[in-house]
Amino acid sequence: MPDDQHGHHAMPPAHPFDDDKLREECGVFGVIGLDQAANFVALGLHALQHRGQEAGGIVSHDPEHGFNSARRFGYVRDSFTKASLMDTLPGLLSIGHVRYSTAGSKGNTQIRDVQPFFGEFSMGGAAIAHNGNITNAAALRRELIERGSIFQSSSDSECIIHLMARSLQRDIPARMEDALRRVEGAFSIVAMTRTKLIGVRDPLGVRPLVLGKVGDGWCLSSETCALDIIGAEFVREVAPGEMVVITRDGVESRQPFRPKKSRFCIFEHVYFSRPDSILGGRSVYETREAIGRELAKEAPVEADLVCPVPDSGTPAAIGYSAESGIPYGMGIIRNQYMGRTFIEPTDQIRNMGVRLKLNVNRALIRGKRVILVDDSVVRGTTSRKIKEMILDAGAAEVHFRIASPPTAWPCFYGVDTPERSKLLAANMTEDEMADYLGVDSLKFISLDGLYRAVGEAKGRDPKSPQYCDACFSGEYPVEPADMIEQGFVMKTAAE
Amino acid sequence: MPDDQHGHHAMPPAHPFDDDKLREECGVFGVIGLDQAANFVALGLHALQHRGQEAGGIVSHDPEHGFNSARRFGYVRDSFTKASLMDTLPGLLSIGHVRYSTAGSKGNTQIRDVQPFFGEFSMGGAAIAHNGNITNAAALRRELIERGSIFQSSSDSECIIHLMARSLQRDIPARMEDALRRVEGAFSIVAMTRTKLIGVRDPLGVRPLVLGKVGDGWCLSSETCALDIIGAEFVREVAPGEMVVITRDGVESRQPFRPKKSRFCIFEHVYFSRPDSILGGRSVYETREAIGRELAKEAPVEADLVCPVPDSGTPAAIGYSAESGIPYGMGIIRNQYMGRTFIEPTDQIRNMGVRLKLNVNRALIRGKRVILVDDSVVRGTTSRKIKEMILDAGAAEVHFRIASPPTAWPCFYGVDTPERSKLLAANMTEDEMADYLGVDSLKFISLDGLYRAVGEAKGRDPKSPQYCDACFSGEYPVEPADMIEQGFVMKTAAE
Amino acid sequence: MPDDQHGHHAMPPAHPFDDDKLREECGVFGVIGLDQAANFVALGLHALQHRGQEAGGIVSHDPEHGFNSARRFGYVRDSFTKASLMDTLPGLLSIGHVRYSTAGSKGNTQIRDVQPFFGEFSMGGAAIAHNGNITNAAALRRELIERGSIFQSSSDSECIIHLMARSLQRDIPARMEDALRRVEGAFSIVAMTRTKLIGVRDPLGVRPLVLGKVGDGWCLSSETCALDIIGAEFVREVAPGEMVVITRDGVESRQPFRPKKSRFCIFEHVYFSRPDSILGGRSVYETREAIGRELAKEAPVEADLVCPVPDSGTPAAIGYSAESGIPYGMGIIRNQYMGRTFIEPTDQIRNMGVRLKLNVNRALIRGKRVILVDDSVVRGTTSRKIKEMILDAGAAEVHFRIASPPTAWPCFYGVDTPERSKLLAANMTEDEMADYLGVDSLKFISLDGLYRAVGEAKGRDPKSPQYCDACFSGEYPVEPADMIEQGFVMKTAAE
Amino acid sequence: MPDDQHGHHAMPPAHPFDDDKLREECGVFGVIGLDQAANFVALGLHALQHRGQEAGGIVSHDPEHGFNSARRFGYVRDSFTKASLMDTLPGLLSIGHVRYSTAGSKGNTQIRDVQPFFGEFSMGGAAIAHNGNITNAAALRRELIERGSIFQSSSDSECIIHLMARSLQRDIPARMEDALRRVEGAFSIVAMTRTKLIGVRDPLGVRPLVLGKVGDGWCLSSETCALDIIGAEFVREVAPGEMVVITRDGVESRQPFRPKKSRFCIFEHVYFSRPDSILGGRSVYETREAIGRELAKEAPVEADLVCPVPDSGTPAAIGYSAESGIPYGMGIIRNQYMGRTFIEPTDQIRNMGVRLKLNVNRALIRGKRVILVDDSVVRGTTSRKIKEMILDAGAAEVHFRIASPPTAWPCFYGVDTPERSKLLAANMTEDEMADYLGVDSLKFISLDGLYRAVGEAKGRDPKSPQYCDACFSGEYPVEPADMIEQGFVMKTAAE
Repeated sequence: MPDDQHGHHAMPPAHPFDDDKLREECGVFGVIGLDQAANFVALGLHALQHRGQEAGGIVSHDPEHGFNSARRFGYVRDSFTKASLMDTLPGLLSIGHVRYSTAGSKGNTQIRDVQPFFGEFSMGGAAIAHNGNITNAAALRRELIERGSIFQSSSDSECIIHLMARSLQRDIPARMEDALRRVEGAFSIVAMTRTKLIGVRDPLGVRPLVLGKVGDGWCLSSETCALDIIGAEFVREVAPGEMVVITRDGVESRQPFRPKKSRFCIFEHVYFSRPDSILGGRSVYETREAIGRELAKEAPVEADLVCPVPDSGTPAAIGYSAESGIPYGMGIIRNQYMGRTFIEPTDQIRNMGVRLKLNVNRALIRGKRVILVDDSVVRGTTSRKIKEMILDAGAAEVHFRIASPPTAWPCFYGVDTPERSKLLAANMTEDEMADYLGVDSLKFISLDGLYRAVGEAKGRDPKSPQYCDACFSGEYPVEPADMIEQGFVMKTAAE
Repeated sequence: MPDDQHGHHAMPPAHPFDDDKLREECGVFGVIGLDQAANFVALGLHALQHRGQEAGGIVSHDPEHGFNSARRFGYVRDSFTKASLMDTLPGLLSIGHVRYSTAGSKGNTQIRDVQPFFGEFSMGGAAIAHNGNITNAAALRRELIERGSIFQSSSDSECIIHLMARSLQRDIPARMEDALRRVEGAFSIVAMTRTKLIGVRDPLGVRPLVLGKVGDGWCLSSETCALDIIGAEFVREVAPGEMVVITRDGVESRQPFRPKKSRFCIFEHVYFSRPDSILGGRSVYETREAIGRELAKEAPVEADLVCPVPDSGTPAAIGYSAESGIPYGMGIIRNQYMGRTFIEPTDQIRNMGVRLKLNVNRALIRGKRVILVDDSVVRGTTSRKIKEMILDAGAAEVHFRIASPPTAWPCFYGVDTPERSKLLAANMTEDEMADYLGVDSLKFISLDGLYRAVGEAKGRDPKSPQYCDACFSGEYPVEPADMIEQGFVMKTAAE
Repeated sequence: MPDDQHGHHAMPPAHPFDDDKLREECGVFGVIGLDQAANFVALGLHALQHRGQEAGGIVSHDPEHGFNSARRFGYVRDSFTKASLMDTLPGLLSIGHVRYSTAGSKGNTQIRDVQPFFGEFSMGGAAIAHNGNITNAAALRRELIERGSIFQSSSDSECIIHLMARSLQRDIPARMEDALRRVEGAFSIVAMTRTKLIGVRDPLGVRPLVLGKVGDGWCLSSETCALDIIGAEFVREVAPGEMVVITRDGVESRQPFRPKKSRFCIFEHVYFSRPDSILGGRSVYETREAIGRELAKEAPVEADLVCPVPDSGTPAAIGYSAESGIPYGMGIIRNQYMGRTFIEPTDQIRNMGVRLKLNVNRALIRGKRVILVDDSVVRGTTSRKIKEMILDAGAAEVHFRIASPPTAWPCFYGVDTPERSKLLAANMTEDEMADYLGVDSLKFISLDGLYRAVGEAKGRDPKSPQYCDACFSGEYPVEPADMIEQGFVMKTAAE
Repeated sequence: MPDDQHGHHAMPPAHPFDDDKLREECGVFGVIGLDQAANFVALGLHALQHRGQEAGGIVSHDPEHGFNSARRFGYVRDSFTKASLMDTLPGLLSIGHVRYSTAGSKGNTQIRDVQPFFGEFSMGGAAIAHNGNITNAAALRRELIERGSIFQSSSDSECIIHLMARSLQRDIPARMEDALRRVEGAFSIVAMTRTKLIGVRDPLGVRPLVLGKVGDGWCLSSETCALDIIGAEFVREVAPGEMVVITRDGVESRQPFRPKKSRFCIFEHVYFSRPDSILGGRSVYETREAIGRELAKEAPVEADLVCPVPDSGTPAAIGYSAESGIPYGMGIIRNQYMGRTFIEPTDQIRNMGVRLKLNVNRALIRGKRVILVDDSVVRGTTSRKIKEMILDAGAAEVHFRIASPPTAWPCFYGVDTPERSKLLAANMTEDEMADYLGVDSLKFISLDGLYRAVGEAKGRDPKSPQYCDACFSGEYPVEPADMIEQGFVMKTAAE
């Protein structure tokens, strides 16, 4: 059912030349206790836009109108800043969501797939939004349809609403506990009833969720950078496996799940989170700079210039330069008017590829031995094009230094990854990759080096890793049941 | 939840000066066995546009994409004629719906309330659209939510889908039979599965539904005028209480309900249906002309000109003129560019009221005794304004002749009626109404006269009326359960 | 230069199945002395919408903002009723224009071609709008460009502004007189300066223009029906060759041209003007009814039913029926939701042609001898299709009666006519046309009959015709200079 | 006349919180000799987007359609990348323009004010676009209107077209020479006829214009970064006072003006041009790094961190860090989804100001003595807010280092500057400014230091300055005639 009023016209097609990054799929934000709460949610989502640019949705509740909702394709700033729209979202309680597409009809999102989802129960309504992925969603959906549930979206998140509808519990938070105990995977949830703001992290705490205080109210956010924009004070992270239920009377903490050891996503440090966010007590920027320093130690090379691949490689490049003493310079300039994508572009424009976004600072590069620092290599397509641009501009040598280990396994916990066969590192050794990219050298940070940079002085504990690093290690802390049913083969002992 | 992408912006507000007609709420159309079936559905809906101008929706099915759907506010011709949209609705099987708002958030329709509704069951999907009203929808909805169904719209029609989802039957038509046996009210349904086109009329057959044959395919339509536009041949009316299940192999007739005596809506003859449609074997135009003749016999008056209130009063005026011998003339001219309504008009334009739509042909009216023939009087507001315009233009006398009996009771079977207190005839006698309107005389056709005009030579059978005439008589053939719960008081024996 | 912001996207394509009518090309309206004058202009233009449906424009002036302007494609009601737009058009003085395309890039109108046109002169600005056509526009344009004028539109009306800019006169009305003395053709103009509302008719008075009084203000309009909608009183027609200059102090009459005998367009009576307008002291409706009576006398036939081709044939059909005594009935029903045209329709919809707009009232037609009354036959394409529909419905005989003489010559005075070779009557005799259309008989009213019906008891004065009837007679009262240059051959004595 | 179809709805309002930068007003680009030339122009304009974000326009010419044109509000990438639009701009010859508003109705741009402008002359048409400002435009416009020219825009650039229209020369380049000799100010022009691409720089060469070669074709561009995007080779700068006329046969150089000493805009080096462009043989990035080094020498301070105000302060901050040895770090993070502005924002969002765009990297800043490097201080409003954010985040000290001298005079040569009374440096000494901003120290680079950084080893020649530096020095190389007439007072000897 691929349509809704104007829905799929506004839908952006896959980016023709930017498929070479992993994509975080969602950011969530919620506020209780502030007048015009939805305005604060809009600001929070704007600060979380890097976590999802395809679409956004906000739900609010006020006593006069009940639940109010708006969902829009495109950037938060293009819709959820307008008074005419925000006036339709009154109330002291609001949650919101930004999304990149993930499960659900990928590349073909309809407005009805945009979160938050809403359900009317006999004791009142609830809206729910989440960041992450439910790994047994297909099985749950089959079961629910069999019993007579009617799904309105292709999003697996809707399962949670239907599970709640069928719970025998008498209040909404208890129904949510019931529902979440049936759900597997990674999920950081913000939800709301008429009077409560609710936050939950899955037992492993794969995705981030933080609690903030702002004036007389409270807020929940995927990252701390979104607390800053509304002037909220960072209180603490919601703990893995914790449910917080926030009302006018304060924050109640519940533990719906059996306790497990935390496995936070290490890629949040490398790429997903914004550099000005604080994760685990440390600025992401500092961590990335530390990765750069670690990389300079692990993989030194003689050169004239350390140059970031903008913008995500910048902090690591600054760290690499500081550690190595090789001057830092902006050898690649990013067109800041690039935006996200083009709608039905001409062939000529489609063929321009990375040139539309990046230009080489020829005068700076010419004749130099250049170290390019990037955050990751996924398919390798962009890395090849950048290398060509740098050589065309007259660089003497090109050395790639990558601020993460080789990405060899897909993520099933809320990140959009190509299938394994398309991951460069799943098919080549580091040397083969250097050859393929045609660079003078290519080095990735080691997995232990990365753990040291994020603060684990002894590196990775192989028996009980401190983070989820499945994309690098192939060790999945939650079995991806739906994917296995579809044929995905887990790593064997031999690999 | 008052929003969806652009949904409520495109939503037309209540018409500021056209609240003086009863509004038919829906038209349905379905096709099986023709290539690009949705194109034929669009044409059919265009021909049925008079039954609902607020929004329209079409669903189709093809083996490659499965079910396809599009819903739009506004006229069929403005959306469902464009190749770019219709190309998204391929397949040999398609149904569609045009709606005026009714049950559901009235005056505040969202795109998600626009039919057809779709449900995915364990044995496959089905789409359903209906014309009419479910009189026990609120009670059904409460019961279904209590059991864990999640409603996605405020439309009561969605109940049918949820009832079907919970049926224990193994195929979709059987589930629909199950569901409809729980439903009370008036409903002419077209529905589709991946391979079947289904039509149902409620046991009383309040709303029309006809079967047509076109090439190798079949179609279902609210009225015959929509068969004409696609060149289909009229086969027969679907019988009250009948379900037809149409496949490639032909038409199967089922009888899901206990037999009842038919009670077709008599107002379809007076106003709702298009004059070129055939109802019960007779052209609506001829019936209306006959009403005019009957009215001329019942309520003659000496005058110089018989003048229709355009456009709905025209056939009765022609009949009145022919019977009375008083010349027929177009004393009131309708602006054909009027359209349906204005979005956020200026005050000046809002105040123009009926003048925007109608102008008096002053030269023709001046000095004449004028008989104005209109189809009905609901609130009386427009009638008063027309009378003033006619007198301003210099008419010597103004006599109103109304082609229906006094409308004294609201309809609960799919027609948008003001509440009883706003119906002029619920509060005044015919003489009081004449006074109120300030006309020289006012006469309604008698209920018996109307029955004679529609072909019941002996008039109305008071013990077992041949038609549903609740809006005139207050005798409701199906108890309006939800309304009674909300406080509506049925006619007592004394009335 | 075929574009302007969104301009040509909004541009409607040629109507795929409605090319069989002559099209009036413009309506003009102006108001002085009323608060929010532009609102009244919008209402006036809404009443004149039948004179041009492609686009409309309004200019107003207020002391604070100076001249304000808005131009839009589509119906007046869809744009110029919204408070948000009308608020940008404040002031006591305003003029407006509705257009069908004519000279200028036909079928390819840009928003910059939409009148009123505006020019800034050394003594202040002026806006001007006209109904008609300048027959020496191409020559004037060449001359002006040669002298250094820069044209901003492809509309020939812009010539008037440039001629005014180059006049040596010291005030704007005097400059306009200067300019208009260089201009040939048919033009009814409304114009405005900061303080004056100006109306002009060409020396022959080919196009209509009337003066009205409303409250303390004045208005100018193409037709009286637009006076009615704003409650203005009809004062008089602006005389052929007269210029009226209206200020707060009243109406000044000027005579810029050498006196000529009036030659009003007779087709305004037949088709262009609205039936409720008054032309030359007589209602257009009555004239058309008289044409029908005259036609019944000139071309009687035995039949069972007189049936109008809706809507323009209706008054003449009523007259024919009254004179002949043959019953009048609506054998063809018009879909009132048809609108003007379809944007990029599917092939199936394009092929539906006239069926989208008209349906036969089969029950009424079956077995009858039918007289179809239409206003004119241009290409004959629609007439053929209507005849087929009527016969398919089972009519026994079909007789066409046409309320105008054969249209054998193109109009160069502001009406969109096919080139001569496409006019049926330019290539066939009446009998050949009857054969071509496949009807039992076809009769046109005679030119003398038409003159009698419009009130000329003695018919047409062949030496000095009372009207412009070039489309019937080929006698052009103003030589079409540009067209002759392009190869048009005038009627010779022999024809 | 503030409207055109959709024009002023799409018009962005003044940015509520970003009025603290000087704004370059235009970028120009032209191509001859490449198939689908307009596509290359679109790419060039995308690369020049930093020179003007309000609107863009492209004109092309092809033999079949003649001149084609499209103008749009918003970014190039949002309009001029779509195949559906670009297909309307065929041909081997095309020019384009991006604009920020300048002269003309500031903050109230209409689509008709968007360049290129087009004029039809007796020998054919020409389109023209320019970057800069005509300082005697008001006087020229008055004169032209007096003689009968009709202006269609409020842009002073239209004067050039009218002057050309009135020239007695027989070919278009000669007419352009004639016209430009009447024009004063700064102007880098690209223009086109049906067969020629033309580039002109004013006699002082205030604005940049470069010539490139691409395949068999040629291009003209404001900056070299736009040559890179289409893969063009940089040939040379168009010389001050030079006109190049490019046809299939090659590049002809003309000298329409009396020779003058060049006075290129020094602010292009500081801020306007993109860092990857080459000006006068040197990369803008390197010049800015050199400014940072110079600044570190002129205004050293003990500190812990050199931090750029993103993004324009970055290269100078890198230079300052390299020269001073103080570590470089990203203490302020820019939200890359900020876009340009908000349309009708809510009050809450309006009040967020700079927070929407910038966030402090708290963990990095805390406890540190921070040197903030910015490119310029205009009103000082943003600088104050940034200082507050840095202090709130716990910085120990805040030192501002500015990569340009105090901006004390408005620019009249194509840059949007506040009036003098609003320029902080026009009203305060450096110490007063430091007090006003509340920072521990504030230092601007000296004018001589800036000249050294751009490569003038001996600094500024006070008798004959090598650059236009009027915004710093108040010495205007071209008398701003229109502004003086409006009351602007030039610097006196005493100042």
